[in-house]
Amino acid sequence: MTEPSAFYAVVPAGGAGTRLWPLSRAGNPKFLLDLTGSGRSLLQQTWDRLRPLADGVVVVTGSRHANAVAAQLPDLGAEGLLVEPSPRDSMAAIGLAAAVLTQRLPGEDVVIGSFAADHVITESEAFATAVRTAVEVARQDLVVTIGIEADHPSTAFGYVEMADPVAEVPGSFTVAAFTEKPDAETAAAYLATGRYRWNGGMYVARARVLLNHLLRYQPTMHAGLLEIAAAWDSAARDEVTARVWPSLTRIAIDHAISEPLAAEGGIAVVPASLGWSDVGDWRSLADLTPADDGGARILGDARLVRGLGAEGAMVVPGSGRTVVVLGVPDAVVVDTPDALLVSTRERAQDVKSIVDALAADDRRDLL
Amino acid sequence: MTEPSAFYAVVPAGGAGTRLWPLSRAGNPKFLLDLTGSGRSLLQQTWDRLRPLADGVVVVTGSRHANAVAAQLPDLGAEGLLVEPSPRDSMAAIGLAAAVLTQRLPGEDVVIGSFAADHVITESEAFATAVRTAVEVARQDLVVTIGIEADHPSTAFGYVEMADPVAEVPGSFTVAAFTEKPDAETAAAYLATGRYRWNGGMYVARARVLLNHLLRYQPTMHAGLLEIAAAWDSAARDEVTARVWPSLTRIAIDHAISEPLAAEGGIAVVPASLGWSDVGDWRSLADLTPADDGGARILGDARLVRGLGAEGAMVVPGSGRTVVVLGVPDAVVVDTPDALLVSTRERAQDVKSIVDALAADDRRDLL
Repeated sequence: MTEPSAFYAVVPAGGAGTRLWPLSRAGNPKFLLDLTGSGRSLLQQTWDRLRPLADGVVVVTGSRHANAVAAQLPDLGAEGLLVEPSPRDSMAAIGLAAAVLTQRLPGEDVVIGSFAADHVITESEAFATAVRTAVEVARQDLVVTIGIEADHPSTAFGYVEMADPVAEVPGSFTVAAFTEKPDAETAAAYLATGRYRWNGGMYVARARVLLNHLLRYQPTMHAGLLEIAAAWDSAARDEVTARVWPSLTRIAIDHAISEPLAAEGGIAVVPASLGWSDVGDWRSLADLTPADDGGARILGDARLVRGLGAEGAMVVPGSGRTVVVLGVPDAVVVDTPDALLVSTRERAQDVKSIVDALAADDRRDLL
Repeated sequence: MTEPSAFYAVVPAGGAGTRLWPLSRAGNPKFLLDLTGSGRSLLQQTWDRLRPLADGVVVVTGSRHANAVAAQLPDLGAEGLLVEPSPRDSMAAIGLAAAVLTQRLPGEDVVIGSFAADHVITESEAFATAVRTAVEVARQDLVVTIGIEADHPSTAFGYVEMADPVAEVPGSFTVAAFTEKPDAETAAAYLATGRYRWNGGMYVARARVLLNHLLRYQPTMHAGLLEIAAAWDSAARDEVTARVWPSLTRIAIDHAISEPLAAEGGIAVVPASLGWSDVGDWRSLADLTPADDGGARILGDARLVRGLGAEGAMVVPGSGRTVVVLGVPDAVVVDTPDALLVSTRERAQDVKSIVDALAADDRRDLL
């Protein structure tokens, strides 16, 4: 017998989107950008997807971006914005939200779901159905992940291996294991079995269940987060946070809870076909962007771009200048007021090494 | 027995350098640009080469560029600058100079040599020797061209076919014929014979000999130029020029004189190895530009450029922005304040079609 339970969406909004440089910058990161030409940033699109599904939405972000998040989400409200004093990875961010919500709603059986602020999902209906199913599975005291149907044997993502169906909820399965990012051969073998899905890092669980697992696996962290949560909506917040937050272990929720819990049989997966992308680099953004008549993919004012022999090129005319791409199929051309990137879709992953080199040269003005 | 003769260099300074867009523009054409990073424009380098060889230098240019030419060549003087009211091709430009110099120096046997304002010559000594030899041959009443040793079977240039030596001047030959730009097979066959040189459009001749040929081949033009020259250094210049200049036939000196005269045996060639380039497009400019450690060729401030996998790339950081080229060997990246070109050395010739398309769209702001 399940009681009615409130569902809160938690949105960790962090990460610079380094491989989308020079459009994405430390001060204006990927989640704040409109990367789909929709007029809404990835954060706003995440909000648009989640708001109708949840009793509340909480965004966890760094102090540097708190004002920008509040400006982009005017309906979020002060209570919905949890500001981290410093980055402590995803376990701290999600754990903080779980602890604060539990503190705020003492009589309620809160289910939370964590969804990144900087992913794209085109199949909103399928997403809504998957989230509702996951909430139902979470009432079985399982931690639930949404397993994304893989449309190619990607080596850029970890995978979830599905095991047996969860009897109580059709369309859900226990998780045999999470895998690291595989090599190409392994990825192809995964897909051939039909049992593997991409791990998009979306987790749904009862807040108390999640905190109980945290108590078992990371007791010091659990204690710290509960201390912070107790003070959060009081005058003591700043003092307690300043004292305790820096001591929290930097660890991803995948390592802190998901992987060990999967080994215990405590994780379930709801497989879904979401039109999902992590928009991790220029190549994946190009895949998302519709082609124009000449086959170029333009993010921004198409009148600024002239392509000839630019099939498959990804062009961002971001400085107001005319951009001509002549005879460079699959080019990546990102034009911003202070920096220009000319590359190819094939070399998209290596943008990170450019950013690293700029950082090594202390070119913070460009990062 | 040859009399002492004055030698005047004539420099037609025209042509937009369309295939070097977006660096070269109608308002700031190729000959005004420093394309070699030397601190001197192509026009200035032409001046630097010719001034020590000649008794005087005359630049023929359009009214739009007269001020810029005068500013770049402060020692040219008002008399050295012949301003065309409108472009009438090379025969009118060189014929005007020949007629004006003849008018100004009535008692002298003037030899003139015509040299484009927008070519690069790295072997200045060889050039000086070739010009001196050509002046000597011109005293035999021949029209003399300097035949450039071809270092590859180019299909971008016309060729000069050498015939027998000119007995009076060692190192010179009569010309059997001028050829059109050949196809690749023909060009290779030309080189195999050892008798062909590139036609760089450099002509040396007695002014009176040149005018006499013009009288034979283009009598109306001859009369018009003499009428203009008679008025040039008088108060009547503007009136006469405005009336007569627009009526002059638009024709290149190659078609007006060189080709028919070669058929009569009236042309000689002085072959020379000059390190010559017409810098006709980004590919040929790349060939001229030294490579940096990573193999990229940078025209401008190298500190603005980061190349990784950019071997053979030609990069012009011309807007002050940082330019990153990642994994695009042989790229051509030309960054200017209002327009950006991303192409490859292989597609360099096609830049013209982009400029044509911009012109068709009436984007004069970018031309």
